[in-house]
Amino acid sequence: MERKRLQSLGDYFYTELVDNTLPFWIEHAVDRRYGGFTPCLDRRGGLLSPDKPMWVLCRISWLFSRLYNDLEPREEWLELARHGIEFIRRYGFDRDGRMFYAARQDGKPLRKRRYLFTETFGIIALAEYARASGDEECLSLAKKTMDLIVDLYNKPGALEAKVFPESLKTRGHSMAMIQINTLQVLRAADPGGSYNSRIDNAIDEVFRYFVKPEKKVLLETVGENGEYLGHLPEGRCVNPGHAIETAWFIMEEGRYRNDLQLVQRALPILDWSLELGWDEKYGGILYFVDIEGRQPVQLEWDMKLWWPHTEAIYATLLALALTGKNRYEEWFEKLLGWSLKHFPDKEYGEWIGYLHRNGTVALDLKGYYFKGPFHLPRQQLFCHLLLKEMLSNA
Amino acid sequence: MERKRLQSLGDYFYTELVDNTLPFWIEHAVDRRYGGFTPCLDRRGGLLSPDKPMWVLCRISWLFSRLYNDLEPREEWLELARHGIEFIRRYGFDRDGRMFYAARQDGKPLRKRRYLFTETFGIIALAEYARASGDEECLSLAKKTMDLIVDLYNKPGALEAKVFPESLKTRGHSMAMIQINTLQVLRAADPGGSYNSRIDNAIDEVFRYFVKPEKKVLLETVGENGEYLGHLPEGRCVNPGHAIETAWFIMEEGRYRNDLQLVQRALPILDWSLELGWDEKYGGILYFVDIEGRQPVQLEWDMKLWWPHTEAIYATLLALALTGKNRYEEWFEKLLGWSLKHFPDKEYGEWIGYLHRNGTVALDLKGYYFKGPFHLPRQQLFCHLLLKEMLSNA
Repeated sequence: MERKRLQSLGDYFYTELVDNTLPFWIEHAVDRRYGGFTPCLDRRGGLLSPDKPMWVLCRISWLFSRLYNDLEPREEWLELARHGIEFIRRYGFDRDGRMFYAARQDGKPLRKRRYLFTETFGIIALAEYARASGDEECLSLAKKTMDLIVDLYNKPGALEAKVFPESLKTRGHSMAMIQINTLQVLRAADPGGSYNSRIDNAIDEVFRYFVKPEKKVLLETVGENGEYLGHLPEGRCVNPGHAIETAWFIMEEGRYRNDLQLVQRALPILDWSLELGWDEKYGGILYFVDIEGRQPVQLEWDMKLWWPHTEAIYATLLALALTGKNRYEEWFEKLLGWSLKHFPDKEYGEWIGYLHRNGTVALDLKGYYFKGPFHLPRQQLFCHLLLKEMLSNA
Repeated sequence: MERKRLQSLGDYFYTELVDNTLPFWIEHAVDRRYGGFTPCLDRRGGLLSPDKPMWVLCRISWLFSRLYNDLEPREEWLELARHGIEFIRRYGFDRDGRMFYAARQDGKPLRKRRYLFTETFGIIALAEYARASGDEECLSLAKKTMDLIVDLYNKPGALEAKVFPESLKTRGHSMAMIQINTLQVLRAADPGGSYNSRIDNAIDEVFRYFVKPEKKVLLETVGENGEYLGHLPEGRCVNPGHAIETAWFIMEEGRYRNDLQLVQRALPILDWSLELGWDEKYGGILYFVDIEGRQPVQLEWDMKLWWPHTEAIYATLLALALTGKNRYEEWFEKLLGWSLKHFPDKEYGEWIGYLHRNGTVALDLKGYYFKGPFHLPRQQLFCHLLLKEMLSNA
């Protein structure tokens, strides 16, 4: 990439992050009355719901901590992180150590789920905040929660099941994938701990069960020994954005360890998923793809969501930085071009999250249970930091 | 409606039902190896999944029984009904009397849900089949299951909850609504039983809690005493197709009892829901609407699904038959015209189920967990029968 382009892109992502994305959330989502954040917002920042989805609250707290740690030590960001962490510590945890999925505005629990994803976002929030603030209790709670969920994940039957495992034993890709990232954040906050072997295990799980080079895919769901479940829609299903996110988690690990072989193992996942997910008809990345070309069964299969695009933008830039290969620059520019044409809300700031297949707006809400200030500002932050590094190496 | 139109429409629905809809399912969905049906089919009738969703299996068994009872006593239809009922009785029930939500092809249970909807479809299948076959055991199982679910529905905490009811006490419209229809089918099979007061209770529940004349809506979710939860997306949400289906369940009750007042009470629900749900931009009925004009939070909110249209076609024809009012003929023709332009699969038969807002195809599968031979053939059957009656009264 040209020096000039590196420079202007780096500036662009910084400005977008600091002058567009963050102000939207700081202005509209901070709940000074009950604490924490109210991220369920319409296009203009008006409340769609006062509910407090814990995924989003944890991710916001992670974000402000990370900004403080890696961008600039602004007091405002640390204060906002603390504001979130206080609510999460007070209202986010059940007596069994697990976390609630959602709380009412006043903190009363609304819902708890079997899945352990809320806990993984709780861990990155607590760990990143501990790194920012030096708060040892937060780090210790993050570590305890990590141990708890790994324990639950590996203990058969520990989570009550809605399915009958004797009828169909499957494995999902998400928990292995999210553990890589969760452990990476925890490691940065806990330099004395031993995380590499646990990260190795999670990466091994991804490659052993879900990566299928002969089919050129990373699958979402396989049999308990990694069998291809081609007779089932869930077995044929690829979520390209999800696979691309996994690819960059693994590439980051290679970069951290200076292990180019690990980077090389992750690159095909990125290549396959871009090829498979890119919509030749309208551009953009499809939400779900059936690898045998059958009709996906999700009603939203052909929608264009913001987050697969932010993940792909960062993944291709990282691949370019680590390999220098031309094709990643091409993909990066193509993804960024399509995204900036369709997602930014030019009137009210931030990004539209949900487009129809043809790129028109399907839902213009800014935040809800799955959308908040996470994928977009993370991409803007990480791209900015990486571009600075690329520039200094250029 | 003109005599000629009554005649030609009546013939049209009969032909479509008998020569198009039914052959698709009889050819592709009957599982002669393991019993029951495999309704998860692609556009051409190829298997998308061998799973057996119990909602769909029950509804198919209801359909063939009803065809035998009310259209023609074809042995083939009775045999197909029996074929479904045998599988359902063998593999559909858990030891606690509740039903499984889905089974594997060989009948092993795959999933059981907290919601009681599978049971309501089990009841109409068993009751309608009992009426067709005289099988007393089926009727008795239907009645026992009805008692069980009413008991569970009314007993607080009988179904393990994922939510924390102390934090938000809500009521959903579905269970009251589906009880009306379930009890109607049971009554027809059990002439000695006393069902009217139970149906009255269910209808009362709909009007007491969910119908809001001042807002001109039938709501999906309200507070425990019918409070409007306008601060929550679920509180502002209307599912127009669902409300229209409720309207005709109640209109049918008025027709059965020769109670025009009851019909009159139901008509506004139909009127409001058509006005609210009709998409002025592209035509067709939206899947979800926020009654305050906020952004609905469901990704599929603006899709055009087949079933709200089949329900509205029958509801408006029934309203026309019962009131003679011109506006129902206009709505009927408008709904039928839009539907026949967009939903029928001219190449492979049956209907496409899922369109984008603008009427283009989003998913072309023919059957899955929610789509099967139910809403479309029920509409075709009921419209055909009603048109015959209208013709004989004309």
